[in-house]
Amino acid sequence: MIRSISESPLYPIVNPKSIAFFGASNTFMRMGSIMLSSMQALGYEGKIFPIHPKEKVVRGLAAYTSILDVPEIPDLAIIVLPTEIVCQTLDDCGKKGIRHAIVVSGGFREAGPEGAVLQKELEAIARRHGIRFLGPNCLGVANLHLKLNPTPIKADCKAGFVGLASQSGSFITQMFNYLHRHGMGFSAALSVGNEASIDIVDCLEYLGACPNTKVITLYIEGINRGSKFVEIAKAITPRKPIVALYVGGSEAGKQAGLSHTGSLSGPNEIYDGIFKQCGIIRAKTLTDLFDYALALGTLPRPGGNRVVVQTHSGGPGATAADACARSRLQLPRLSPETVKKLKPLIPKTASTANPVDMTFSKNHTDDYFNIPDILLSDRDTDMLLAYFVSPGIFLERILGEMGVEENSIPSETDKLMRDYAQEFVSLTEAHPDKPIVGFTYRSLQEKMIRTLLDGGIPVYQDPERAARSLAAVREYYERRGKR
Amino acid sequence: MIRSISESPLYPIVNPKSIAFFGASNTFMRMGSIMLSSMQALGYEGKIFPIHPKEKVVRGLAAYTSILDVPEIPDLAIIVLPTEIVCQTLDDCGKKGIRHAIVVSGGFREAGPEGAVLQKELEAIARRHGIRFLGPNCLGVANLHLKLNPTPIKADCKAGFVGLASQSGSFITQMFNYLHRHGMGFSAALSVGNEASIDIVDCLEYLGACPNTKVITLYIEGINRGSKFVEIAKAITPRKPIVALYVGGSEAGKQAGLSHTGSLSGPNEIYDGIFKQCGIIRAKTLTDLFDYALALGTLPRPGGNRVVVQTHSGGPGATAADACARSRLQLPRLSPETVKKLKPLIPKTASTANPVDMTFSKNHTDDYFNIPDILLSDRDTDMLLAYFVSPGIFLERILGEMGVEENSIPSETDKLMRDYAQEFVSLTEAHPDKPIVGFTYRSLQEKMIRTLLDGGIPVYQDPERAARSLAAVREYYERRGKR
Repeated sequence: MIRSISESPLYPIVNPKSIAFFGASNTFMRMGSIMLSSMQALGYEGKIFPIHPKEKVVRGLAAYTSILDVPEIPDLAIIVLPTEIVCQTLDDCGKKGIRHAIVVSGGFREAGPEGAVLQKELEAIARRHGIRFLGPNCLGVANLHLKLNPTPIKADCKAGFVGLASQSGSFITQMFNYLHRHGMGFSAALSVGNEASIDIVDCLEYLGACPNTKVITLYIEGINRGSKFVEIAKAITPRKPIVALYVGGSEAGKQAGLSHTGSLSGPNEIYDGIFKQCGIIRAKTLTDLFDYALALGTLPRPGGNRVVVQTHSGGPGATAADACARSRLQLPRLSPETVKKLKPLIPKTASTANPVDMTFSKNHTDDYFNIPDILLSDRDTDMLLAYFVSPGIFLERILGEMGVEENSIPSETDKLMRDYAQEFVSLTEAHPDKPIVGFTYRSLQEKMIRTLLDGGIPVYQDPERAARSLAAVREYYERRGKR
Repeated sequence: MIRSISESPLYPIVNPKSIAFFGASNTFMRMGSIMLSSMQALGYEGKIFPIHPKEKVVRGLAAYTSILDVPEIPDLAIIVLPTEIVCQTLDDCGKKGIRHAIVVSGGFREAGPEGAVLQKELEAIARRHGIRFLGPNCLGVANLHLKLNPTPIKADCKAGFVGLASQSGSFITQMFNYLHRHGMGFSAALSVGNEASIDIVDCLEYLGACPNTKVITLYIEGINRGSKFVEIAKAITPRKPIVALYVGGSEAGKQAGLSHTGSLSGPNEIYDGIFKQCGIIRAKTLTDLFDYALALGTLPRPGGNRVVVQTHSGGPGATAADACARSRLQLPRLSPETVKKLKPLIPKTASTANPVDMTFSKNHTDDYFNIPDILLSDRDTDMLLAYFVSPGIFLERILGEMGVEENSIPSETDKLMRDYAQEFVSLTEAHPDKPIVGFTYRSLQEKMIRTLLDGGIPVYQDPERAARSLAAVREYYERRGKR
């Protein structure tokens, strides 16, 4: 197990200061050109050396006919070329002294017996030069903290705390926007492709040591180095949570994985056992994978499994209670002292059972700070699950009725929503040892919810997802023990 | 079982031509005022008679001191008054000759023994006058086809095909926007509150006969008239699907329901048995409830459980295959004829196994019509599950590179996306007997996805949700048998 990311063969791949880029040209409709353009769009600040047989300038950058002509030894080569010339290119890179590469090109093991032979040749060339590489048949890396995104999809997201090692490139690029919408961002995301030189175990090890990564997510179709995986994962989980989505357990998932990356899979039960042994939380779906990551990356260790549900509405409260029960979370009664403190702040018809149903707002500041503050102060409360109906839909109308000018209503409403949300966010400072999450049926992009997400409160679109995520946090820390 | 909605006691409540409104004033911050304003905002075209002890004009409408002064007998009374004066008001309505009401006010059975006594009195008054009413302690109805929305929340949605009978008012009002975002709308939504006169069984019967309702959703905390429920549901499901969310099965859900509407609940197993016996599809979560409703309301009866997965990307394809397996849907091999027809349209590296992984687009028109058309034409294909990555994110960049003026890029891209989506939508006409659904990790509000949703293609945010919804459709028709 490495102690610092700089010991990892991935370090220069994820953090290159200079890149030789093969396969970009001034014809935009080529994969290589699109990937170079993504990198330029995000504003990568290192040096880029395009290699092109004919063009002297590629997308505004001085280009070189051969890698051998480049005036320095780049940290990394990115190769997006036709299959037939990949081996020769990697050999040239080796001759130049380059020791790290990403081979995006496909047509290797995943393409059948001939491709497998070609992959063997690629591996031999790499070994001869001491080159470590990601791929072939991958999308490489995104390191948003370094503004590095040499993938075909624009990174419409912020840098965050979620590390991903994936046997599917799509789950990097096609998740940029998904993660952003759900209140997260990648720290580093790694697509392993055919794993000819660097595999998902190496990526796991890197992410375990990566200081920007607070939670590791894995998309797995099949693991080849099983015992090494267990060793590395066991070393990481006492310090950092790992969530894994494994799809090779069903016959259909296995077949799909086979024709995708040619990976070997095993029955669900075996992977369940491995994950449990390592302290890894298993996600059944991609939704779970990132739902759990959001909770594990933002929430503190809970003291127990007792949840208080705060709601404005009986139905959402009851569904939340039902969801908590399904996830084996308990709903404790509030103590008499807590009930006494609540009474002056809530209407007569409100319920001080758990769910605490405020029915309607006497005062928004009470709703977003004082009431949850009282609930979180109860000794028997380990976690808070709050329902957000987003009063913006009321406030817009109230402001209209008050005669506020129509044009300024949206911005006035947004301001109020942001203020309420920020009060709620400040609960995390007042109660740093108690997980606080929310759920809503409004869009996550509405001002109040977005402010909560940006402030580090996980908010989910269904209490089921919130309860499952709280349970994942609880499970992680139970497996981790006292550490 | 009624044969026409006009036989239902709910008919004048859901379709009133004139309404007496108690509890609205010119002070906006009152529930009644907010509810009247919602009704005005949506543009209800019937007559509204506000009753107010002092104000002569309420929100621009001529007001009456007493219901007895109103120049005609309104079809419906809506009562949003303090608990203490509700009984007297209903009695006055009865004297006037009004026979239908919605009692929004709370403070009855749900509030304890004194409230229960008051509810008995209310029931006696109604019986004496032959009044049937929704509530008390409810939010009443929304009939979007009639532009009727006397609820506190603005109806930011279109009229649609989803009927809802709910023991929570929140699941009407707080779902307007949720349904719209997910490609649906309510036909009629009914909040039953304490069910003193009209209960969820009456609502079910109404929705069964409602021509605007293609699928019925139920939110249940507990059913009192069990055998009548079974009788009515059994009569409906051979013609129209019913999906039910029941939350009273867990101890926590039961307690929450009790303090919400005072309803009696039973163990999950009993409700499972009842639902099965009636041909009702059970949803575990609110997400499931409306996911299934979308599929059941838009898709035809499938011929079997064989799904073909069409994708651009291996990972999403493999997760879709895994999700299908979990939902007991089969992934058949494509026939040699189908493979032969596909080959010219897809790249060499593409996979013609199932999932069909096109890897990248040779031609968008092929992706959105010709390829799925070939897949749907295969005799062994019962359903199609397509992954949408929304090529808009590429096209915007391509148009930029082509020198299209920056301002017109979004509209040009939108136009292309709409055209592609409409081609895909036309598959439903070419294959009217095969369910077609999609999944994406992009926002459902992006032009392509939104056009698909508006065109009647259910698109989900995760293949798991898509597969579960397809399985719900399959299960519904299997239980329904040959009818």
